Amino acid sequence: MSAADRDALLLQLEIDGFNARYAAALDERRFDDWPQFFLAQGEYVVQARENFDRGLPLALIALESQGMMKDRVYGITQTIYHGPYYTRHVVGPALLLGEEDGRIRAQANYAVFRTRPGDASEVYNVGRYIDAFERTPAGLKLASRRCVYDSEMVLNSLIYPI
Amino acid sequence: MSAADRDALLLQLEIDGFNARYAAALDERRFDDWPQFFLAQGEYVVQARENFDRGLPLALIALESQGMMKDRVYGITQTIYHGPYYTRHVVGPALLLGEEDGRIRAQANYAVFRTRPGDASEVYNVGRYIDAFERTPAGLKLASRRCVYDSEMVLNSLIYPI
Amino acid sequence: MSAADRDALLLQLEIDGFNARYAAALDERRFDDWPQFFLAQGEYVVQARENFDRGLPLALIALESQGMMKDRVYGITQTIYHGPYYTRHVVGPALLLGEEDGRIRAQANYAVFRTRPGDASEVYNVGRYIDAFERTPAGLKLASRRCVYDSEMVLNSLIYPI
Repeated sequence: MSAADRDALLLQLEIDGFNARYAAALDERRFDDWPQFFLAQGEYVVQARENFDRGLPLALIALESQGMMKDRVYGITQTIYHGPYYTRHVVGPALLLGEEDGRIRAQANYAVFRTRPGDASEVYNVGRYIDAFERTPAGLKLASRRCVYDSEMVLNSLIYPI
Repeated sequence: MSAADRDALLLQLEIDGFNARYAAALDERRFDDWPQFFLAQGEYVVQARENFDRGLPLALIALESQGMMKDRVYGITQTIYHGPYYTRHVVGPALLLGEEDGRIRAQANYAVFRTRPGDASEVYNVGRYIDAFERTPAGLKLASRRCVYDSEMVLNSLIYPI
Repeated sequence: MSAADRDALLLQLEIDGFNARYAAALDERRFDDWPQFFLAQGEYVVQARENFDRGLPLALIALESQGMMKDRVYGITQTIYHGPYYTRHVVGPALLLGEEDGRIRAQANYAVFRTRPGDASEVYNVGRYIDAFERTPAGLKLASRRCVYDSEMVLNSLIYPI
């Protein structure tokens, strides 16, 4: 196997594994683990596709550091009054888009299903992760994850991270 | 490539392939093939997340051997009166959780869609497989597959395996 | 790693990557790119599972060359009057089925979600791709992709490729 093939294989494995761990943390409601998938200055944006496609800046959520993410988690778990629900992420194999300035670019399609107590599961939010990863001593971390969702009507308010 | 990297890659490939074959057998209604994904003393459990999270034992279905699975398949295909439906499994790449006592632990998020005759497809059951595999001369087999589903309201009765 | 293992890994990576690029082209509405995933004489068929399972030939859509696909794209983007919608494909890891007469056979389960303006996302079409790939100087190309869908009731008309 050529060195390039080997590296591509290992990177694919690493990113798909990253996405599986990310999904597991959220779906298992280990929200305190969530900011650790990002760099300290990592960026997390949830944006409607309509705005993304037109290059418009408006986003539903835009967090610009781990600190803001921790604050968000505190809000979710301690202060926001909301009807509880489960989430379940099904994420397809990532599409690797190359490396630039030390950042690995990738994207992956996701479907998030929501289940409210006593109710059937429903499609909650579908879209794609547009990611930039950096390699750190603690493994890959997100410099940026942009969740660009198709769903124009967000079912109730979007509480938990996507 | 290091031996550890190589083994991780091959195992990921093997488990994702296993899950794809498992899904294909069920979705193509080759129910007689289903018990063969398990060890003779393999365990198959379908359990609500609410009970799993609290460590409660109650499960919707708990089969403790291939014999019980064959019996279940006989029930499904020969005796249970039920409205027919198609299933379609979409399973994300597995998350490998390590090896212990000769058993490979892994989990994977799944979404099962149901289509009833003349109707649109709908979200049927979403959750995660929590698995323990053993290596046999015939390849990987499930010592245990626990399907922990989010969906609190199971649409009609759950007839076919998840 | 044995040569066979290595080849299997690389092929899996290649086909999952192909499916991710295919999905991205459609979901990002780059319809002009779509015929290029096929050989010049490639075949694209969308068929109800009911007919496929019985060996019946009737299909919703059957295109027998890149030329017909380009014509279809022209129809979609320039002439058909239809309510617009977004699609989102979530495709599971492919199941490799072997090689025959220089063609690589594989299949993969897919779920396509549809979002209409101002509406929630919904399950649109679920099924499996049944594929034959050929290796060309420009990489893998589809000699045939058969989209066999479970969904008996197709939500409105099916405009965009699956």
